[in-house]
Amino acid sequence: MAAIPAEFALIYRHFRPLAGPGALNLDDDAAVFAPPPGRELVIAADAMVEGVHFLPDDPPDLVARKLLRTNLSDLAAMGAVPLGYLLTVSVRRDTPDAWFAGFSAGLAHDQREFSLVLLGGDTTSTPGPASLSLTILGSVTPGTALRRGGARAGDEIWVSGTIGDGALGLLAATGRLADPSGFLAGRYRLPQPRVALGQRLAGIVTAAMDVSDGLVQDLGHLCRASGLAAIVEAPLVPLSAPARAADMLELCLTGGDDYELLMAVPPGRVAALGAAAAAGDVPVTRIGAFETGAPVVQVRGAAGAPMALRAGGWSHFT
Amino acid sequence: MAAIPAEFALIYRHFRPLAGPGALNLDDDAAVFAPPPGRELVIAADAMVEGVHFLPDDPPDLVARKLLRTNLSDLAAMGAVPLGYLLTVSVRRDTPDAWFAGFSAGLAHDQREFSLVLLGGDTTSTPGPASLSLTILGSVTPGTALRRGGARAGDEIWVSGTIGDGALGLLAATGRLADPSGFLAGRYRLPQPRVALGQRLAGIVTAAMDVSDGLVQDLGHLCRASGLAAIVEAPLVPLSAPARAADMLELCLTGGDDYELLMAVPPGRVAALGAAAAAGDVPVTRIGAFETGAPVVQVRGAAGAPMALRAGGWSHFT
Repeated sequence: MAAIPAEFALIYRHFRPLAGPGALNLDDDAAVFAPPPGRELVIAADAMVEGVHFLPDDPPDLVARKLLRTNLSDLAAMGAVPLGYLLTVSVRRDTPDAWFAGFSAGLAHDQREFSLVLLGGDTTSTPGPASLSLTILGSVTPGTALRRGGARAGDEIWVSGTIGDGALGLLAATGRLADPSGFLAGRYRLPQPRVALGQRLAGIVTAAMDVSDGLVQDLGHLCRASGLAAIVEAPLVPLSAPARAADMLELCLTGGDDYELLMAVPPGRVAALGAAAAAGDVPVTRIGAFETGAPVVQVRGAAGAPMALRAGGWSHFT
Repeated sequence: MAAIPAEFALIYRHFRPLAGPGALNLDDDAAVFAPPPGRELVIAADAMVEGVHFLPDDPPDLVARKLLRTNLSDLAAMGAVPLGYLLTVSVRRDTPDAWFAGFSAGLAHDQREFSLVLLGGDTTSTPGPASLSLTILGSVTPGTALRRGGARAGDEIWVSGTIGDGALGLLAATGRLADPSGFLAGRYRLPQPRVALGQRLAGIVTAAMDVSDGLVQDLGHLCRASGLAAIVEAPLVPLSAPARAADMLELCLTGGDDYELLMAVPPGRVAALGAAAAAGDVPVTRIGAFETGAPVVQVRGAAGAPMALRAGGWSHFT
C-alpha cells in the first residue's frame, strides 16, 4: 500500500502550503503550538453552512475568506492579535478539485492579509450541504482582553463602519434587492473584520463585541453582560449610501452579518477612540448611551419616540 | 428587546454548565486561555457528519462522546494531557431540546472521565444532516510530543487494544452482522481513546499515531513520515473474540474507527512499553517490524506469504 489515498493527496495539494511551523506539515495527529511567551490565548470557533451562512454558488475563495473573517471578527472583538487556525471542511464527495483550489487560494490571501497560519484540521465528506468550521487562536497581553461585561451607565455606545450592509447584501445577492454597484452583496460575501481597531481598544472601551447577529440583539447581549439598559438613536446609526438608498432601516438594525465592532466608551475617552479608529483605518460613530436599568435595548426614531421592532435579530432556533 | 433569543437560551441551558474558567461563561466572543506555564500546546480538530461518522438514530449522548473521544484519541497519539475543547454544532432547526440535553449530558460525562472543559463554540442550523466539529487542546512537556516521523529500521510495530472492532461494529449497528452481545456496535459508537497510555509513551516509542482510518492505511502514513517499509504479520494482529468469530480479517486490517494507538518501539524498550500499558490499563501487542525500504506496508498471512488487500483504508474522496 504505497499510494496516498485521495483524501490525503487533496490535503497535501491544497492545505499543506498554508501550514505554519506548529502544524508539523499536517503530517501528524495534531499541531504542537508554543504560545507566545507572556501572552494569554484568545480562542473562538464559528461554523458556516451552505445555504445558511453562504450561498451554494458563492465563489469558494470568498467562502473561505468569509469563514476566516467571521472568526477574525471574534478576535477583533477581544482585542487579540491573530496567530493561527484549525479548519474542518465537510463537502460532497464529488466536490471538484477546483473548488478546493479556490478555497485554499482564498485562505492563502487572507493569511497574508491578517498574518496567521493554518495549524491543522480535518477534511470529510457529507451527503448534505457543505459544512465548514474554523477555530481561531490569537493572543493578548494578560488581563487586557476586551469583554462584554464592563460597560457602565453613562458610557456612550459606538460602532465601527456601517450597519446593515450584510443583511441587505444577502437580499441583493439573492436577487431581492437592487444593488447596481455590487457593494451590498460584497459586504455580505466578504466581511471586513476590525482586527486593527480591536487591537487598539484596550484601555479605551469598557466593553466590546462584534455585531454578527444584528445590532439590537447583540447590544442586548452586551446589556445583559453589563447589567445596563441601552438607548439607541436610530438616526445616528451609520448607514452606507447604498443602505440609505435601500430605505430598510429596521432590517439594518436587526439583520445579521455586519461584523463591525460595538463598543462602550466613557465620554472622556472619545478622543482616544478617534485616534484608534484613525490608526485602524475605519470610521467610528456614536449611536446612543448606556443607562441604569433592566437590560433592555430601546431604539428611538427621528422624533425621539421609541421604535417598535418586529424582530431582535437572527436566531438559528426559534 | 429583553428576551434572550431561543438560540442563546439553548446554549445557556445546555452548554454553559460545561464551560470551564477560560470560557467566560460563554458570554463573550471568545475564550481567554492561559496555557499551563512551561508546556507546549497540542491542538487537533475533527469533524463528524450524520450518516458518515455516526448513524441518524445513534443516541445523542453517544454521538457527543464519540466526537469528543475521536479528538481525545488525537491527543493520546501525541502523548498530550487534555485541557479543553471548542465545539461547533450544526443541526436542523426542529431538533428537539431533548437531543441537546442528551448531547450535553454525554459531553459532561466524558469531561469528568477525561478531565477537560468546554471553552467555547458555535451552534447553528443546517437544512442537511447534523454536522459537528470539535477542536481539542492538550499540553505536553516541550519537545516530548509523540510524532509519526521518528521510527527506525528494526523498531517493532505495536498496537494497543484490539483492531477491527469499529469497522465490524458499523456492520453490526446497521444490521449487517450478528452481534449478540452488542460488543462490536458498542466499540463503533463509543471509542476508547488511549489517553492514559499515550501520556506514558514519551521516551519509549520512536513514533506513534492513532488508528482511525484503518490499520494498513494509517501504518502507511507512519511509514511515509519515517521513510521506512513495514511488515505486518496478520496472525499477530490482536482481534477481540467477537471479531475472531466474525472471521473478516481483511476488513479488520483495513476498516476505520479503531482509535487504538499504533507505535514504533525499539526492541530494548519493550519492557518499558509493557509497564506503560499496564499503568494505562490497556493491552499492547506486537504485530510486525519496520525495515529499510520504500514506504510500503506488506501484510503477511499465516504461512508468511504476502496478503493482497483490496482496499487500504477509508478515504472520504476517491
